[in-house]
Amino acid sequence: MKNKLKNHSSELRNYSRPRINPSQNAPIGVFDSGLGGLTVVRELRRILPDERIIYFGDLARLPYGIKSEAQIRTFSDENTRFLLNYGIKALVVACNSSSSAAYSFLKKTYHELPIIDVIEPAARLAVSATRNGKIGVMATQATVGSGAYEKAIKRQNHSLGVESVACPLLVPLVEEGILKGAILTLTLKRYLVPLLQKKIDTLILGCTHYPLLEDEIQKVAGTKVKLIHSAPQAAFELRERLKASGAIAAKIAKSQRLQVFVSDSPLNFKAIASRFLGESLGRVHMVKFEGQVLKNGGWVK
Amino acid sequence: MKNKLKNHSSELRNYSRPRINPSQNAPIGVFDSGLGGLTVVRELRRILPDERIIYFGDLARLPYGIKSEAQIRTFSDENTRFLLNYGIKALVVACNSSSSAAYSFLKKTYHELPIIDVIEPAARLAVSATRNGKIGVMATQATVGSGAYEKAIKRQNHSLGVESVACPLLVPLVEEGILKGAILTLTLKRYLVPLLQKKIDTLILGCTHYPLLEDEIQKVAGTKVKLIHSAPQAAFELRERLKASGAIAAKIAKSQRLQVFVSDSPLNFKAIASRFLGESLGRVHMVKFEGQVLKNGGWVK
Repeated sequence: MKNKLKNHSSELRNYSRPRINPSQNAPIGVFDSGLGGLTVVRELRRILPDERIIYFGDLARLPYGIKSEAQIRTFSDENTRFLLNYGIKALVVACNSSSSAAYSFLKKTYHELPIIDVIEPAARLAVSATRNGKIGVMATQATVGSGAYEKAIKRQNHSLGVESVACPLLVPLVEEGILKGAILTLTLKRYLVPLLQKKIDTLILGCTHYPLLEDEIQKVAGTKVKLIHSAPQAAFELRERLKASGAIAAKIAKSQRLQVFVSDSPLNFKAIASRFLGESLGRVHMVKFEGQVLKNGGWVK
Repeated sequence: MKNKLKNHSSELRNYSRPRINPSQNAPIGVFDSGLGGLTVVRELRRILPDERIIYFGDLARLPYGIKSEAQIRTFSDENTRFLLNYGIKALVVACNSSSSAAYSFLKKTYHELPIIDVIEPAARLAVSATRNGKIGVMATQATVGSGAYEKAIKRQNHSLGVESVACPLLVPLVEEGILKGAILTLTLKRYLVPLLQKKIDTLILGCTHYPLLEDEIQKVAGTKVKLIHSAPQAAFELRERLKASGAIAAKIAKSQRLQVFVSDSPLNFKAIASRFLGESLGRVHMVKFEGQVLKNGGWVK
């Protein structure tokens, strides 16, 4: 395992030509800046129960949502190359900030690889859900700054109105486990009141952390506003893509289904991970982007 | 400038032997995970007005305070090597998380270089300030997890009581510009009430972001609690070290006094920087840790 990881990391560093594996039983690669993407893994496991999944969470460099587009694109490319070294047959960009900054770039660079992002599916769902044509978007600064949701929605129907708000405090609140109470409610009001004043009837949760705040967001937004999640729709769209190319996996043993790699192991890491995954996490591999596995042999304590 | 930067970055990558410059007019290097360390630069400029300062803010990989000790040590070592390539005569580790995870390591590795951290000076000040022997510490998760303040205080007087609290929401609040109001007050109460119940009379602001919240922290803590800042004390201690070795700079032109390097340029970057520095920032260089300068020639727009 150790040597295998070493090879992968040095391939990453040397920018060698990545391999795309078209075989049916190859794994699906998923990456996110952190652990929020495990909410997408949870849906993938529900909707595609027989698939093997390789997850990479870039904990050493998170969060992406407060960084520049160029930087997020570089990180996303490195993450994709890391996953390609595991012979993946498809890629899910489970991070909204990466989807907004790097999806076009990744599609162009790895054009043989089926790639699903989390912005296009949520935008499609919102377009079909809205009744009054006014869609709200909650997301990170990077995602809002890119205008990715607005563009994806307008491409389908340019007459729709889109109101976006950057919510930089929500990720730290979720990571600290503050999932209800006065601080959260006041923070949600600060972000959502301007959107509600514009009479939105549909609200996209444009970050993988936000589904954990769903109940509280619904309370502040009111029951008439429909909340849109990326994860289930992204999983459905991936299933359609795999079906169309005959690449759905045959039944495999449950123990092989999820492998998790991270680039750091901070305090409270496993508690936060299981909050997103909805079950406790098994063994986790640690990788370093400088081309070495950490001395403990790659296993997170 | 471009070639110079390229050489520096590749030296960094190759882990060549770093050069320490003992000359009087060499610059002082300062690094932080982000821009909070500019509060330290502000004090250095006040207390050592004739010194040249080279600042590095690792915006691509911030924040450090939620990451592992091993990861923070690696980042801190890379930052130090970057600054050594500018021929610095002394180093200020302006980041509390780096000070807690990497100060001992840096002192051992670069033993000829005078290094000042921000934890030891604040601990000394707190020990001399407390009347009832009960000191509180507000800091990031990494700093609290390391026990660095507690150890530094107990080394001087093992009978003192130390109560620490990790405050992960405060950095995002400051970065979003929420410097007063109900969300901030409730968050401060959440963190500080347990410390106040222990009857602390002295409170260390153990992160470079917290001085911007000083007034609100004082309101919640009450006027009887003395707040301790690292930055002025760190600057005083550096001045003493430089004086002792005859390394105080001769008078230099004002325009040469501060050079700022960052590893990313996110949204709102200049606004946040000037909030910490207390004046607007001039030109800023961008560097990439993969050994190249960004294509724009290294200048942040």
